[in-house]
Amino acid sequence: MIRQAVIMAGGLGSRLKEKTASMPKGFVEIGGVPIVQQSIKKLIAAGVEEIIIGTGHCAGWFERLGGGVRLAHNARYAETGSMGTLACCAPFVKGDFLLLESDLIYDAAGLRVLINERRKNVVLASGPTNSGDEVYLEADADGFLLRQSKNRAEIRSLAGELAGVSRLTVAALGAMVSYWNARMVDTPKMEYEAALVAVSSDAENRTPVFVRKIERYLWREIDCEAHLEAARESVYPRIQEAESLLSIRRETLLNPGPATTTDSVKYAQVCADICPREAEFGDVMEWISTELSLFAGGGGVETALFGGSGTAADEAMLSSCVPEDGKLLIIDNGAYGERFAKIASAYRLNFDVYKSSGFMPLDTDRVKQTLLDGMYTHFAIVYHETTTGLLNPAPELCRFCHEHGVTTIVDAVSAFAAIPIDMDRDCFDFMASTSNKNIQGMAGVAFVFCRKEALEKLKAYPMRSYYLNLWDQYAYFKKTRQMRFTPPVQTLYALRQAIIEARLETIAGRYARYSACWEILVHAIKRLNLNMLVPEEAQSRLITAIIEPDSPKYRFDDLHDLAREAGFTIYPGKLSDAATFRIANIGDIRPEEMSRFAMLLEQYIKTL
Amino acid sequence: MIRQAVIMAGGLGSRLKEKTASMPKGFVEIGGVPIVQQSIKKLIAAGVEEIIIGTGHCAGWFERLGGGVRLAHNARYAETGSMGTLACCAPFVKGDFLLLESDLIYDAAGLRVLINERRKNVVLASGPTNSGDEVYLEADADGFLLRQSKNRAEIRSLAGELAGVSRLTVAALGAMVSYWNARMVDTPKMEYEAALVAVSSDAENRTPVFVRKIERYLWREIDCEAHLEAARESVYPRIQEAESLLSIRRETLLNPGPATTTDSVKYAQVCADICPREAEFGDVMEWISTELSLFAGGGGVETALFGGSGTAADEAMLSSCVPEDGKLLIIDNGAYGERFAKIASAYRLNFDVYKSSGFMPLDTDRVKQTLLDGMYTHFAIVYHETTTGLLNPAPELCRFCHEHGVTTIVDAVSAFAAIPIDMDRDCFDFMASTSNKNIQGMAGVAFVFCRKEALEKLKAYPMRSYYLNLWDQYAYFKKTRQMRFTPPVQTLYALRQAIIEARLETIAGRYARYSACWEILVHAIKRLNLNMLVPEEAQSRLITAIIEPDSPKYRFDDLHDLAREAGFTIYPGKLSDAATFRIANIGDIRPEEMSRFAMLLEQYIKTL
Repeated sequence: MIRQAVIMAGGLGSRLKEKTASMPKGFVEIGGVPIVQQSIKKLIAAGVEEIIIGTGHCAGWFERLGGGVRLAHNARYAETGSMGTLACCAPFVKGDFLLLESDLIYDAAGLRVLINERRKNVVLASGPTNSGDEVYLEADADGFLLRQSKNRAEIRSLAGELAGVSRLTVAALGAMVSYWNARMVDTPKMEYEAALVAVSSDAENRTPVFVRKIERYLWREIDCEAHLEAARESVYPRIQEAESLLSIRRETLLNPGPATTTDSVKYAQVCADICPREAEFGDVMEWISTELSLFAGGGGVETALFGGSGTAADEAMLSSCVPEDGKLLIIDNGAYGERFAKIASAYRLNFDVYKSSGFMPLDTDRVKQTLLDGMYTHFAIVYHETTTGLLNPAPELCRFCHEHGVTTIVDAVSAFAAIPIDMDRDCFDFMASTSNKNIQGMAGVAFVFCRKEALEKLKAYPMRSYYLNLWDQYAYFKKTRQMRFTPPVQTLYALRQAIIEARLETIAGRYARYSACWEILVHAIKRLNLNMLVPEEAQSRLITAIIEPDSPKYRFDDLHDLAREAGFTIYPGKLSDAATFRIANIGDIRPEEMSRFAMLLEQYIKTL
Repeated sequence: MIRQAVIMAGGLGSRLKEKTASMPKGFVEIGGVPIVQQSIKKLIAAGVEEIIIGTGHCAGWFERLGGGVRLAHNARYAETGSMGTLACCAPFVKGDFLLLESDLIYDAAGLRVLINERRKNVVLASGPTNSGDEVYLEADADGFLLRQSKNRAEIRSLAGELAGVSRLTVAALGAMVSYWNARMVDTPKMEYEAALVAVSSDAENRTPVFVRKIERYLWREIDCEAHLEAARESVYPRIQEAESLLSIRRETLLNPGPATTTDSVKYAQVCADICPREAEFGDVMEWISTELSLFAGGGGVETALFGGSGTAADEAMLSSCVPEDGKLLIIDNGAYGERFAKIASAYRLNFDVYKSSGFMPLDTDRVKQTLLDGMYTHFAIVYHETTTGLLNPAPELCRFCHEHGVTTIVDAVSAFAAIPIDMDRDCFDFMASTSNKNIQGMAGVAFVFCRKEALEKLKAYPMRSYYLNLWDQYAYFKKTRQMRFTPPVQTLYALRQAIIEARLETIAGRYARYSACWEILVHAIKRLNLNMLVPEEAQSRLITAIIEPDSPKYRFDDLHDLAREAGFTIYPGKLSDAATFRIANIGDIRPEEMSRFAMLLEQYIKTL
């Protein structure tokens, strides 16, 4: 697992003079996008959490790059060469990392190859580029770096041309920095490849760096106008084609989850086999739990992970969070509230159901009165009813519960990671969600978020389910950094990638995007004289239940098939007493896609 | 989802005369392997379940190809051209399929591109190959095939060169066959590309075939010695390199599951997003259930799938299969038997535990007597104790149970798909397993196999868990072909691929491979004077618990780290009363890997 990358971007780019007099080389555009930005995108898609950019010349440009990037400035960039810039980045590097030059275009396949390498220190090399600016590499019989030169004649047996994309350990980086420090007075201007060769060929204390050659690796460094021209004309289109062969057919899921995912989340599932009891995988799960907790308000929130669906998380809460003498009130105003009741009934809990309309807002005063009158100790509510798109006033009711000493249990399966939640502020003691809704991962991981204070009490509660026991799952993980039972390993890797992408977008940004899609949908609904089941002000803006058109010709399957043919998946309604169909606007969907869907909907409605 | 491929292999290969006088062209070798065999391997890795080969010239050669292949002979191959061969295959084609020429080498990326296409009829085309035998394609403004010719001058605007790899619908195939049938008397000798162009350009009743061009697609048809030479020297190595960029670092998991998987199982997780309530996904789950049932004896076996681990399957059985008035005897001779008891206790079942040594064979007479004395109605046993590698005599005991009307519940988590099982013969009423052990899929899907007769009774039993209720899960799927709760979609696609590969190897073949690995291990253990915990004759040959060497220098972590560095993952013991470590030989592992591990073990033991 490689979590960080360093991009060395301090250079003057003097050979691209007009272009880079007042701009760093990385901001040269190919295909309309600065090349450093293309590189960042590829690194994030490859699972890198943080990209450290060593800046120098025109450093200010990098400040506009946004999320996932940390800048480290090399004030002496004009004198030091790339090694000085790398040394400025070094303090931020915490583990194995990818090291890149900033003025590169390259096939993302190279990143995968490096990440998949068993060897820890590796430079990528290619066959002949004929670029006119080759750095030739020489390796020993085992393939480890011995020498580099721009002069082919200085290389005895050619191992390839340095491509400017490497993977290194912190130790190798430290050795490189030490090497430079020791020579800084005599040779302040040193390129990183010189230090790399030095540590890899050091007879006394060798840190061998493997030369991984891909004969036809697609990459180009942009050092001068001729390079730029060649890159635009020939290398860039080839990279585009090579990468496009891995892209997956776009299906826009407008069903209420599983939601559409990015290709990078899909590919995050493909990784070397690992036993989930290895410490390395413990790190992954711990990172996931911590990051998920932050999305739920951070602070005192603990996240327990289970292998299962959102319902498994609901069942883990209900079966684990109510003591023998507890009395539970369940709000049922949709299929998921009803499901809460079914679970409570399977476990023979002492509970009552408060039934309310599936599409009209809850009467909060009546709920509060019921809570007091019934002397309930526990309260369970679905924040966002996936059945209809109705958003329940869970924070208001849970705050009331806390004022009266009632423990709160919230199904936030389709609310979490879109509707802003802070469990402390919102007084949610326990909250369930899943990997395949707004967090935009793959199905198979269920989460239960717990306020620490409420969680501690569970220790003394009866174990009603073994697989879904919340306390045991939490406590075992805390102690061992392992799940009690084999976790869905690959789904967790996908979830990790989904979290990286959610952090970059931010939950607020995600909700804004979802809302923009919803507005396009609602606009179309109104234009087409269709009606929504839930009053607009009570809607989540995530799922919209649309009342079926009043036409004998209407058939859900016709609309479904028309949409499916065009790459959209829609979903029937779920309420038995209202004929609806549902459009969700969650997942990796874009407003322009919702506009296209709105056009399709119009096309279908006109046939009625 | 594309489940079938057709390879047209009837041709005479007359231009490769000496080579193909008595051999079909597809058996020309490059890299030491017949090219048709390379093609079959790529098709299977791409998720194709059945490959139909249309044979003609020297048809007998194809009979040695083995699993996954169905042969369709074209007796008139000398007169008909490839269209006649394709017509002979047509009756076996049931849905969308891949169509290939037999004398091709090609980059497997082309298969992925076709499988990912939204359009249903697509031919792959490339930029210039300069092969001297190009079939040039012309397309209309929308990219659909209009004309083909070997004469470049006949093509107005060039859409690319036909690569010989296509995807078609049954309807398109039918149209092609009809076209040929109507002309068979006048033009018996017709190549398939002529029929393809005809149906795609038919003004009356067009079946448009899209030309998908990959400018730098790596492929070559081997028609003559010059082609073969060029393919060997240039195209083949490039294909090898391009495909190798996708290979995943090999980690050999010698822990007792999750087991090592093939790269094709890993990549099967990467597919277009799909709502699991779509009929198409229902097909996938139904196919999985049916195929799994066949591995468990077929006939009256029904398989219910759950999202969760093996323990979830155990809990589904225990919580669902014992009625209120039932009385259960649990055999506990390892961690998994103990887990059975913990689950039974959480659900407050009426049960007793029969405790036996963790490493000595069960006393079957005493168990039988206990069953009779205690008037038990239900019996639960772990077939293969993953804790130690002890194989329990589950069939003998379950047969006894059936003779006395006792229902049997078997944890076969790490036995299934290696130890041959026939639930009818072995008298297993309910049996649990999981996707990530011997079936060699990814973690996240649990299965419960049920003998139909025993299953029907569950309908009347109390629901103790909602998520893990076996009857509801089974009945809902039967009715709707959907799981009750969101299934782990991608893990199921991986499981589908794992089943395809298990069918090809066969369960007997798999157990033979596992046993070969085990023999190598045991040989090394004896040579190194180590001791095994379980007597050899009571072992499963799947997992071996080795008693820790009696040396003050021994540390499990040292051995673990040495092995891990070399790509092997091993696992500590689990019994509290015996210091052991465990080596499993399940998953996609090869005898030569076990030999390498044995050498490592020797290397470590010598340091003690």
